[in-house]
Amino acid sequence: MLIYAGFSMSFGIGQRNSCSPSKAPPPGRVDTSRQLKELRTRLKAMALDAFIITRDDGHQSEFPAHRDRRYTYISGFSGSDGIAVVTREWGAALWTDGRYFLQADIQLSCDWLLMRIGQPGVPHLMDWLLDILPENSKIGADPKLVPNSIWNKWASKIGDSSISLVEVFENPVDRIWNSTTGRPPYPEYEAYVLAERFSGRKWEDKVKDLRAKLDAEGADAIVVTALDEVAWLLNIRGYDVPFNPMVHAYVTVTPDSVNLYVNESKLGLQVKAHLKSVNCYSEHCTQVYSYDALIGDLKTNQQKWKKVLLPSQCYNSPGASRAIYSAIPPGKQLVTSSPIIFMKARKNHIEIDGMRRAHIRDAVALCDFFAHFEESTAAGEQWDELQVAKELDQFRREQNLSKGPSFSTIAGFGPNGAYPHYLPSDSSNVLLIDGSSMLVLDSGGHYLDGTTDVTRTIHLGTPTDFEREAYTRVLMGSIQLASLVFPSDVPMNSIDVLARGPLWEVGLNYLHGTGHGVGAFLSVHEAPITISYTTGNLTFQEGYFFSDEPGYYHEGHFGVRLENVLEVVKKQTKHHFEGQYFSFLPVTYVPYEPKLINVKMLNPQHRQWLNDYNAKVRTLVGAELKRQHRMKGFYWMMDKTGYIPEHEPSSASGCIRVTALLLTAIQIVVLFSRGL
Amino acid sequence: MLIYAGFSMSFGIGQRNSCSPSKAPPPGRVDTSRQLKELRTRLKAMALDAFIITRDDGHQSEFPAHRDRRYTYISGFSGSDGIAVVTREWGAALWTDGRYFLQADIQLSCDWLLMRIGQPGVPHLMDWLLDILPENSKIGADPKLVPNSIWNKWASKIGDSSISLVEVFENPVDRIWNSTTGRPPYPEYEAYVLAERFSGRKWEDKVKDLRAKLDAEGADAIVVTALDEVAWLLNIRGYDVPFNPMVHAYVTVTPDSVNLYVNESKLGLQVKAHLKSVNCYSEHCTQVYSYDALIGDLKTNQQKWKKVLLPSQCYNSPGASRAIYSAIPPGKQLVTSSPIIFMKARKNHIEIDGMRRAHIRDAVALCDFFAHFEESTAAGEQWDELQVAKELDQFRREQNLSKGPSFSTIAGFGPNGAYPHYLPSDSSNVLLIDGSSMLVLDSGGHYLDGTTDVTRTIHLGTPTDFEREAYTRVLMGSIQLASLVFPSDVPMNSIDVLARGPLWEVGLNYLHGTGHGVGAFLSVHEAPITISYTTGNLTFQEGYFFSDEPGYYHEGHFGVRLENVLEVVKKQTKHHFEGQYFSFLPVTYVPYEPKLINVKMLNPQHRQWLNDYNAKVRTLVGAELKRQHRMKGFYWMMDKTGYIPEHEPSSASGCIRVTALLLTAIQIVVLFSRGL
Repeated sequence: MLIYAGFSMSFGIGQRNSCSPSKAPPPGRVDTSRQLKELRTRLKAMALDAFIITRDDGHQSEFPAHRDRRYTYISGFSGSDGIAVVTREWGAALWTDGRYFLQADIQLSCDWLLMRIGQPGVPHLMDWLLDILPENSKIGADPKLVPNSIWNKWASKIGDSSISLVEVFENPVDRIWNSTTGRPPYPEYEAYVLAERFSGRKWEDKVKDLRAKLDAEGADAIVVTALDEVAWLLNIRGYDVPFNPMVHAYVTVTPDSVNLYVNESKLGLQVKAHLKSVNCYSEHCTQVYSYDALIGDLKTNQQKWKKVLLPSQCYNSPGASRAIYSAIPPGKQLVTSSPIIFMKARKNHIEIDGMRRAHIRDAVALCDFFAHFEESTAAGEQWDELQVAKELDQFRREQNLSKGPSFSTIAGFGPNGAYPHYLPSDSSNVLLIDGSSMLVLDSGGHYLDGTTDVTRTIHLGTPTDFEREAYTRVLMGSIQLASLVFPSDVPMNSIDVLARGPLWEVGLNYLHGTGHGVGAFLSVHEAPITISYTTGNLTFQEGYFFSDEPGYYHEGHFGVRLENVLEVVKKQTKHHFEGQYFSFLPVTYVPYEPKLINVKMLNPQHRQWLNDYNAKVRTLVGAELKRQHRMKGFYWMMDKTGYIPEHEPSSASGCIRVTALLLTAIQIVVLFSRGL
Repeated sequence: MLIYAGFSMSFGIGQRNSCSPSKAPPPGRVDTSRQLKELRTRLKAMALDAFIITRDDGHQSEFPAHRDRRYTYISGFSGSDGIAVVTREWGAALWTDGRYFLQADIQLSCDWLLMRIGQPGVPHLMDWLLDILPENSKIGADPKLVPNSIWNKWASKIGDSSISLVEVFENPVDRIWNSTTGRPPYPEYEAYVLAERFSGRKWEDKVKDLRAKLDAEGADAIVVTALDEVAWLLNIRGYDVPFNPMVHAYVTVTPDSVNLYVNESKLGLQVKAHLKSVNCYSEHCTQVYSYDALIGDLKTNQQKWKKVLLPSQCYNSPGASRAIYSAIPPGKQLVTSSPIIFMKARKNHIEIDGMRRAHIRDAVALCDFFAHFEESTAAGEQWDELQVAKELDQFRREQNLSKGPSFSTIAGFGPNGAYPHYLPSDSSNVLLIDGSSMLVLDSGGHYLDGTTDVTRTIHLGTPTDFEREAYTRVLMGSIQLASLVFPSDVPMNSIDVLARGPLWEVGLNYLHGTGHGVGAFLSVHEAPITISYTTGNLTFQEGYFFSDEPGYYHEGHFGVRLENVLEVVKKQTKHHFEGQYFSFLPVTYVPYEPKLINVKMLNPQHRQWLNDYNAKVRTLVGAELKRQHRMKGFYWMMDKTGYIPEHEPSSASGCIRVTALLLTAIQIVVLFSRGL
């Protein structure tokens, strides 16, 4: 599943479609006049002139629980990233990025301005507020729901103007959005233990490693706020947010305590025993506190601490909220990336084995699904994108250790495939799939032993030359990135050119990052890895897993994306000049579509890589398909993984034909001569 | 000519060779005991505890005049980059980088510590001073000879310690180094005008462009300190520093004046007329002042200025000196890259044509030299590296518009070629060239219409498989970089992987940058371009020229480097997805050595590039060789630029042979049958 990484497309400023009185609103538009009116009444009561509603939950999660999607309630916009601003008297506006320009324009009612981030002339939200608000205005925001780095940016924008930014702990949206106005509760499922045969390391040992890092940094404590960090550190998982197997909880770690802030109803006996949270009071036990007690406890405990590590932004990990920063005096803050990000990204041997195995079972599900889908459509059955997503999820769930999809499946046919982040939904323009164009299928699964993320593009009919060229160029880029051998000091942003080069060659490109880190039964978008020439100069470590997913999007026609997860491994090179070399090992083993590959465009290195890859698919996924008696999937897989001649076949095969002809001629001549 | 770009090799700390009393000093070692003694006497008189002697002149030039090489006088070290520190009582030390570890160790006498920059444990010079000096010590340095950015770094290292850093305008080295102790004078040649048919733009128009930039920045004045910026801005050239055609001068530009600070003896009537410096007092005339008046004038004039643009460091352009910064109150300083850097790097159409033409004549000189050299050595004549450098320079000087070499020719045979920056000199271990190894030849010329910089590697005997592999991998990298098509927002640091990939594949690499900007009859190392994955995230502009020069250095055995200058051009791609695309056009057209290319390792894209390149060499350089009746060079060039089959030849050619055989067989059978 692709990640945004700062690219954007060209659009006009602020412009809204279908907002003239003569036009009917498009299907999917949400009337938010009641919400706006109620919120404005509350703002007046609170003496606020504007209120900022972020996409965040209290952990800055990528997929907040439905109960936490306040911006969707207020604005109607349901995309995964957006920020809404409602002023008391001067309008309302929503900022979102290039992935969602179209969707936001459909969903927002006409009393909303749509601020397309990255477009020329589109103001930063704070600049917009400073421009429209009268002097001495007060802008409110909930500090639990704003990363501190963002809050600081806002504050520095305001500078010494007469306008002020106010921390509003009593969120006014929570007052108007409740069960009577349709607010869903949080999920009630309990947390569970991730066994050591999956995690590969006891939580007590992880805490020990973390304490060593705190000691090296001179910190007395760390506040762990990101849900995947909490889950990883304590080897627990849960059901509190969509798609990610995590528990709503905070942790603080000091040299002599591990403190878990969580709704106690989440913890069953098994988890409590695992955490040693009952009648256990050493530094190797976990103390459990109420979820809401964190801020108060921080304010109290900081009095005995000299230095507290507060996570700062680190690529797609936003860091701790303003509320948490506010609880620690500035002089005691150690503002830096959470060390857990780097500990977690570097998978241990058990996790590496798990990731590899999970990807093989995941490939089995995909092969079997594709076989079923192609057979069914060939037999004349009609499928739409929603059905593809639904049935594919079902095939995954049949696999051992499955814990459901790792994100909402992207199944985009034809023009829908040209929106990189298109999600089919009941309210969208869901298309029937036929042989007239291509289908982009980007999906992933969670398994107890690993998380997968894979994209393949298929075509049920006869592809055009341009579709084949686009597919082949995307494949070439994917192969070139995957084939790289490099010294360990090479920054991530400098390898993107390999994936994009074949597209650039003919003036094509794609407006998203080429890759992102992938967690081990954790986030499918895991910090700190990002592969994009526009950002990210960290270096790779052995045991990192990340996606390699170039694409091409032909507006109004089709999309292509091919995504494999790669593992960073040490490379034993023929020579050894200065330092360690790394290479990438694919862990995704799903066949490509041969009819979409223009073999003539591939050079011998591309062909060799593809043959090696296909051989691995046959060996690894073939064995598992047979073991599971999924013979339909097996034959489909065998059919898609044929051998490609590694050097230009034309002259050689022509030659064989000529030679055969001549041999026949000789035989005829010989026979003829004998007959004489 | 390669540029350093922050790479370094592994060496021990501080270690000196041949410094035990029993060992004879190596040839080339310089006894500096007298210099040290005299300088220390002066330090005592000036109440200084240490003095820092930089490599800089008053313009932070890459190649300071011999009169300005104070660090060489004091330390004996003659490499192009080093910084010497002499303390009153606590020793002396010289810092230099990986290019010069060996040379410095040979040249420095044993009373010097050698500080190998980048090696583990090697302290920053200021850390070393803070460590060894007693409390309240005073460290002196000449602020004219230190870039302000470096001075600030030193000051911040000192922080609030009791030790202080003192601006010493009366340089004590200048007191002990004079004509009686062998100090050379500055060159006495006059400056000259670079005609508009070479510069492509009147200086008055350049000043107008510059004033527009100052206006946009809100600056009342700029102090132009870099010699190539002065030369470019005023379309004048001179002979004041080695290898670079520049005049020792400063310029200040304000909305109503252009002020040139120069030794007036440099200006003849023609230059004065060109600059409109006689009896002309509008903003379109140049006022000439004494070279030494700059600092005083700045102190006076700043009283009427609100904001003065002072050049900061910008890649290999170090920015203005501490002395210049000190003349302007901090509140009035606008510290930013000189806008001239970017104006100058983007060549105009006349300069582009000139660069292309100069490179063709330069290739003629090289082809003719190589033909002569190979013929001569084949006839049994013995050449050493010095003779190669000397005779090649002579071939260049024979070319039209020649203004001599653009840097000291690097001719490194066998193990000497494994030192990337090896310069043969009378005092070095100059080697005879024979058929036992490879010769790296890195050279360049200045011409009135352009500057060249080219490296080729040759072998007079039979290369080993590893030599051929190394050469071929370097060539593949060079081709891959040169073949790139890319959108205009791609940063420079992200394309380096293309040049290094083929070496990395087998665990090889090189410890220098892959490329640097090249001036138009100006610096051969021109800011702001640097191609290195370790630094530099600027983007390319149309009309930039830079070197593409991967290499490989096999310590103790041989070096390979292949360098072409490339021009950045707009690319008309087949498709047009979002924005402008660029590609690179080679301007260097000198043949590669076919016997060093393992064609089997090249993929079809490499082969096609090489065939296209060779075709261009034959057309462009061939025509000029014939025009100049240099037929020896012409036939040599033709011999080296043969066609390479673009697809694997084995099967096809084997096929022809089999087919021919079979046809013969048929004929025999037919004949035989007829005979029956």
